[in-house]
Amino acid sequence: MENNNQEEEGQIVTPWEVAAEKGGKIDYDKLIDKFGCQRLDQSLVDRVARLTGRPPHVFLRRGVFFAHRDFNDVLDAYERGEKFYLYTGRGPSSEALHLGHLVPFMFTKYLQDAFKVPLVIQLTDDEKCMWKNLTVEESQRLARENAKDIIACGFDVSRTFIFSDFDYVGGSFYKNMVKIAKCVTYNKVVGIFGFSGEDHIGKVSFPPVQAAPSFPSSFPHLFSGKDSLRCLIPCAIDQGETGKMSASDPNSAIYVTDSAKDIKNKVNRYAFSGGQDSIENHRKYGANLEVDIPIKYLGFFLEDDAELEHIRTEYGAGRMLTGEVKKRLIEVLTELVERHRRARAAVTDEMVDAFMAVRPLPNMFS
Amino acid sequence: MENNNQEEEGQIVTPWEVAAEKGGKIDYDKLIDKFGCQRLDQSLVDRVARLTGRPPHVFLRRGVFFAHRDFNDVLDAYERGEKFYLYTGRGPSSEALHLGHLVPFMFTKYLQDAFKVPLVIQLTDDEKCMWKNLTVEESQRLARENAKDIIACGFDVSRTFIFSDFDYVGGSFYKNMVKIAKCVTYNKVVGIFGFSGEDHIGKVSFPPVQAAPSFPSSFPHLFSGKDSLRCLIPCAIDQGETGKMSASDPNSAIYVTDSAKDIKNKVNRYAFSGGQDSIENHRKYGANLEVDIPIKYLGFFLEDDAELEHIRTEYGAGRMLTGEVKKRLIEVLTELVERHRRARAAVTDEMVDAFMAVRPLPNMFS
Repeated sequence: MENNNQEEEGQIVTPWEVAAEKGGKIDYDKLIDKFGCQRLDQSLVDRVARLTGRPPHVFLRRGVFFAHRDFNDVLDAYERGEKFYLYTGRGPSSEALHLGHLVPFMFTKYLQDAFKVPLVIQLTDDEKCMWKNLTVEESQRLARENAKDIIACGFDVSRTFIFSDFDYVGGSFYKNMVKIAKCVTYNKVVGIFGFSGEDHIGKVSFPPVQAAPSFPSSFPHLFSGKDSLRCLIPCAIDQGETGKMSASDPNSAIYVTDSAKDIKNKVNRYAFSGGQDSIENHRKYGANLEVDIPIKYLGFFLEDDAELEHIRTEYGAGRMLTGEVKKRLIEVLTELVERHRRARAAVTDEMVDAFMAVRPLPNMFS
Repeated sequence: MENNNQEEEGQIVTPWEVAAEKGGKIDYDKLIDKFGCQRLDQSLVDRVARLTGRPPHVFLRRGVFFAHRDFNDVLDAYERGEKFYLYTGRGPSSEALHLGHLVPFMFTKYLQDAFKVPLVIQLTDDEKCMWKNLTVEESQRLARENAKDIIACGFDVSRTFIFSDFDYVGGSFYKNMVKIAKCVTYNKVVGIFGFSGEDHIGKVSFPPVQAAPSFPSSFPHLFSGKDSLRCLIPCAIDQGETGKMSASDPNSAIYVTDSAKDIKNKVNRYAFSGGQDSIENHRKYGANLEVDIPIKYLGFFLEDDAELEHIRTEYGAGRMLTGEVKKRLIEVLTELVERHRRARAAVTDEMVDAFMAVRPLPNMFS
């Protein structure tokens, strides 16, 4: 029986949990090997820039998206003139998203714009109904609410199909679920997900639902006759480092519904500082950037490379104080959240219906 | 862990296998207790006759359908003016049905006619795709072929919805699958079906597909707003006594595609006789009706009670010979199969489409 859990190596990695021994750091190099991935190195970042004719996204430039499987094959095909499609998703378990939830969607939007390719977004309301014990109706309501946040990220309705499992499972999609299920033993699933015999069978049944969108034949209204179309899946590491200011306090996360005052309070109160304990020491030794949460957040959300480098240098040398860095982060996050809020407020029910309509997308590759 | 397999009691009963120790007879009284059923006794048969205003079906009169769960509750509700619906189905694993396959459909047709209630018939093409390793396309082709045989049994298109899982799973049906899956642990399913960890997860996922049709909300086009409608499920014992002439030879089964000559050959060659080994002994001792296969078949398919009783008496007393009984059985079966063949030949593709269309059935209760 295969077992991808990493307990024996001092870190636990399951689809739901990522934790290092004694609160230490996750060793992603180990994980990359264990999961059969490759590092997303500079030459690949350069290749993306060359192929798309635009600067690589900040998440690529700064190694936020750091590993891949077969991305080179997708790019080889793309270079030969063969397009691909993107697949990502969300399990709608809460009303509001935090910034960590937005990261994969921001990156996916960049990929869609840069490569001009179609995108399918799966809302796994069935999963959350089963795992979080929500009613079908509540899961579907949350799926629709989350769809508004996703649409607010700026996806192109002429290239994007958002679907709820409860609405969309069936037909060709269900046929693919059955075909996938035939290829996977119970032992295999237990090895990957760590289920027990007392878990309900909905959990055991779910992996094919999440795997089906990676096959173009699951979307006959989009990809009929394109059975060999490749699928690229941007996904997050689910370990929440971008989501929370403090690892121990879930309320410290910055939500897209937070006010400017909330953001200011959370950054000032929870964002662990790598600065020294007195101004004198700080001026003398500088900040420890490795453990500094405001610097980590700026690395995600401050787009200007020169300014980020300037802050890192000045802060690291002790010439800039934690308060100044936090002030800048508060500005950046407030602007991001305000922009998202405005965009979300502009998302109408009709727009949600339009994104979720089962329809052909005639210009999705152009 | 629950274990409904009966091995410890000298007989094996799983959803796929029924076998008594050393080829002996199945003890159905034991099974009725074990599965929490009740005997379908004479008072219940009389009650059905009274409520429907017609003589009970031969399968009821002769104990072919011999057990039930909560049938009295369904009849109580029916007497109060509350209708119910029928649910039965077939796993389409072969082109042609044998007579044993027809039995539950013949009985279901009687129930539909007698109670004037709607009927849903599930064709589990997904199941056969997974268990028999058929392709999706072949399973669906067989489902449609089998639908023709089912329609040929005489179901009323104004009260009958036939569906293929590959076509119909989704929407409200899928929501019910998820709700059911949440209520059933892996251990429970293993206890009932005997899966192993090396079985693929499609098997583990399947029970909710088969359970969903027993909830009226799985069919919003039929039962919208009737969430408390009861469901009655006629089902066979799957042990094949009616299907085969000889327990050891599957080719001995009488198929609905057999010619008159095939039937004659099979009855004469394979139908084990309870008659004596010489005419002298037969005249003297009579036939052993308990082990006589022709008598068993006549019990199923000869409708005339008086004639059946006459044959039993004369044959049991040795005044009638095996050859005469077999001759009568050949007549009965040939007529049945010929009638079925004519009815099936009259089933057009348009009729199959009509039965399988997702549509309301406005007069299904009248």
